[in-house]
Amino acid sequence: MAAIGIIGRDGRMGQAIAAAIERGEHTLAGGADKGEDVAGLADRSDVLIDFSAPGALEANLHAAIGAGIPLLIGTTGLDASHHRAIDEAARAVPVLQTGNTSLGVTMLARLVREAAAALGDGWDVEILEMHHRNKVDAPSGTALLLGEAAASGRGIALAENSERGRDGHTGARGEGAIGFASLRGGTVAGEHSVILAGEDERIVLSHVAEDRTLFARCALTGAAWLIGREPGRYTMEDVLGI
Amino acid sequence: MAAIGIIGRDGRMGQAIAAAIERGEHTLAGGADKGEDVAGLADRSDVLIDFSAPGALEANLHAAIGAGIPLLIGTTGLDASHHRAIDEAARAVPVLQTGNTSLGVTMLARLVREAAAALGDGWDVEILEMHHRNKVDAPSGTALLLGEAAASGRGIALAENSERGRDGHTGARGEGAIGFASLRGGTVAGEHSVILAGEDERIVLSHVAEDRTLFARCALTGAAWLIGREPGRYTMEDVLGI
Amino acid sequence: MAAIGIIGRDGRMGQAIAAAIERGEHTLAGGADKGEDVAGLADRSDVLIDFSAPGALEANLHAAIGAGIPLLIGTTGLDASHHRAIDEAARAVPVLQTGNTSLGVTMLARLVREAAAALGDGWDVEILEMHHRNKVDAPSGTALLLGEAAASGRGIALAENSERGRDGHTGARGEGAIGFASLRGGTVAGEHSVILAGEDERIVLSHVAEDRTLFARCALTGAAWLIGREPGRYTMEDVLGI
Amino acid sequence: MAAIGIIGRDGRMGQAIAAAIERGEHTLAGGADKGEDVAGLADRSDVLIDFSAPGALEANLHAAIGAGIPLLIGTTGLDASHHRAIDEAARAVPVLQTGNTSLGVTMLARLVREAAAALGDGWDVEILEMHHRNKVDAPSGTALLLGEAAASGRGIALAENSERGRDGHTGARGEGAIGFASLRGGTVAGEHSVILAGEDERIVLSHVAEDRTLFARCALTGAAWLIGREPGRYTMEDVLGI
Repeated sequence: MAAIGIIGRDGRMGQAIAAAIERGEHTLAGGADKGEDVAGLADRSDVLIDFSAPGALEANLHAAIGAGIPLLIGTTGLDASHHRAIDEAARAVPVLQTGNTSLGVTMLARLVREAAAALGDGWDVEILEMHHRNKVDAPSGTALLLGEAAASGRGIALAENSERGRDGHTGARGEGAIGFASLRGGTVAGEHSVILAGEDERIVLSHVAEDRTLFARCALTGAAWLIGREPGRYTMEDVLGI
Repeated sequence: MAAIGIIGRDGRMGQAIAAAIERGEHTLAGGADKGEDVAGLADRSDVLIDFSAPGALEANLHAAIGAGIPLLIGTTGLDASHHRAIDEAARAVPVLQTGNTSLGVTMLARLVREAAAALGDGWDVEILEMHHRNKVDAPSGTALLLGEAAASGRGIALAENSERGRDGHTGARGEGAIGFASLRGGTVAGEHSVILAGEDERIVLSHVAEDRTLFARCALTGAAWLIGREPGRYTMEDVLGI
Repeated sequence: MAAIGIIGRDGRMGQAIAAAIERGEHTLAGGADKGEDVAGLADRSDVLIDFSAPGALEANLHAAIGAGIPLLIGTTGLDASHHRAIDEAARAVPVLQTGNTSLGVTMLARLVREAAAALGDGWDVEILEMHHRNKVDAPSGTALLLGEAAASGRGIALAENSERGRDGHTGARGEGAIGFASLRGGTVAGEHSVILAGEDERIVLSHVAEDRTLFARCALTGAAWLIGREPGRYTMEDVLGI
Repeated sequence: MAAIGIIGRDGRMGQAIAAAIERGEHTLAGGADKGEDVAGLADRSDVLIDFSAPGALEANLHAAIGAGIPLLIGTTGLDASHHRAIDEAARAVPVLQTGNTSLGVTMLARLVREAAAALGDGWDVEILEMHHRNKVDAPSGTALLLGEAAASGRGIALAENSERGRDGHTGARGEGAIGFASLRGGTVAGEHSVILAGEDERIVLSHVAEDRTLFARCALTGAAWLIGREPGRYTMEDVLGI
């Protein structure tokens, strides 16, 4: 049983994590939001979970180091300087940064990378995602994460090999391209499929999130796993042991 | 057993129809292509199948009327003037014009129209299609046909309610929109899904074409059905009896 | 805004309906469970929802008639004598009895019946369902309801045309058979697919329940719709207007 | 370009392989069927492909050793003594034995083993397959192969952990069970899905065979790959390089 501190307490994920703590075995050490005292929160916590904003990252890393406790970072929109700051902090405390906390998505990304590497160029990679009607961007961050996994398996750069938003006279599919398509509707929590289409056969690797509370629950799993680890930078793959 | 004449003999569909005739119960009366004698072909045929080009339509309709035989038209790219010419010809002979000969797609379009009509605005309509890597346009003609079916069920105009090629910051889904997404890869003959996404539930209505010979075989079914009918304009729905 | 009385208050569905009332526009008139006073509950309610047990049905119908209010019956395990009692009561008050309250499942069953009727014997009908790991029977009641819809479209009796639990040397598929297959695992709320498999093409008609609260919410929709109707026996199809 | 000899020339797979050779880059060295001279065929071939019967296996292995050429074995129904004979022969020549030649199925089995190993007992494994209406046994050999892959990942014996042919009052799902379900209909070439169902999320790993010629074509790929290898026993995984 761990005491968990939530940074970004008032956001959608912060609230979901607090609710997940209430239903589970851990306790809520407290939360912080815009401008509030993170160092004090860190002193009361066994581990911090950060779903706030990139601008707050440096202060959050300092708070974790100051208290000598691990930090799980789910904040999105990080750039290269943020990743350098995370690497630096990971010399002092365990840090896990991830774009998707789900263990299933983590597993899927691994399988996609392997399949894309083994199957070779004759197999076209397509990525499909569906989310609820209120999602405002496309493709989803998880679709891009899966695209990165495929590109890494192929040894290519995703940015230069993406086909997005096909519409009208597109011409034939680009060789080696990774295609993306996005569906929106209803209350879908999140579904992703990676299709590898070869000659007369296809492999389809999919993930279905049945409920958005999943991501909060898996964030707790990751945070609890971090407690007692050596300093270092970890991923959800480490939590899964793959 | 009917004698079938093929207009557009050298095209992909023309050849596929000739091959399907060879495997089936009917006989090939002959074929015509660019500039060749369609009237003569009509005189030797019990029914004509036309997968040629819009520019040849008028001559083909005249040939059918001249010989007093039915005509099935699968040519794409027809405009309003072509449809008027078809209506005119249908006073003299049976004419069936269709954008997709498959009985399964015809059935699906009917189901989509009904579901879209009954389920109302709270259910978002999305249309997904996948085709082989060499297809050059998106969405597919059949996806648009299914979109028209949904729009007709809703009593809205498709052109003003389509969301195509979602990419980047799209904002939330438009109210009443019909979304389209296209996947390309491998050798997929053609798969279409219409998703109606409501609150906490979804209906998904799909069609899978396992083999492209399907469309040629169904064209034969439609053509044979036309023989002996009263003059008039028919659809594949009439062939299905729905 | 209606005052809704719940018979079978302490069961899983009874509790879910009470929770759905709390989140929605209606009010909870009260609940009754084993042996409690249903007549008194009826007097305080605008409509009753019954998810109790077949043995309680007669008393519940009497209570509705006594108070002159409608009754929605979701109790399962009814036999012919129960259906006769419902028919009788429906002369006095509006009664809606259903094996599945979901509007999406209701719509799907209608589409399945139509497709099975139109497509004819060359199209094999298969029904697949997946539910959570704790479900104790197979196939699901909804799968059977969809099977009945297909059989009714075909004009055959389901009982004499079912293929269930295929395993081992089964021989080729029976002509005209309706096949059933059941998957169990995780926390799946309920997914059903009806596959119509023809020559080189398939139609797949599916329903996905994302959350079990769906069934409680749709029960409220049906109950509210019943208020003010003429006496008679209704179905969820009537609620949908199909 | 290799000269390929087919043992079991008159069977369904033998004929499909001959047809695939005709469409491709290799040449047909000849074929043998019941009782015909395999040693002579081996002398004219660069590699042998055997889709005959278990009773012929020993003679076929001898022929390959005699000619010093590799052998790909796709014959089904092998027992432990056959596998010992294969191991023995593999000291002299390269031998590849497989229950499914498809590269996609081979890849899928690998992914299934890994996912089953990493995800642990909280994720229920279900295997679904669909084949054409004339298939006489269930589950398919490939479904069992995928079940073995999952069982091997879990470190359990498949035979003692299978749930097959669910029907009626089954009780809740067995802990650690691997479930199987079979659909039959139409002309489906072969579709397989392995579902790993956890708490609020699922991974689905699928393979679609679009056309049965796939298996013949992949047999050629495997046979050509064997030419020039060191003696030893190989698998389709070796062909894929995984």
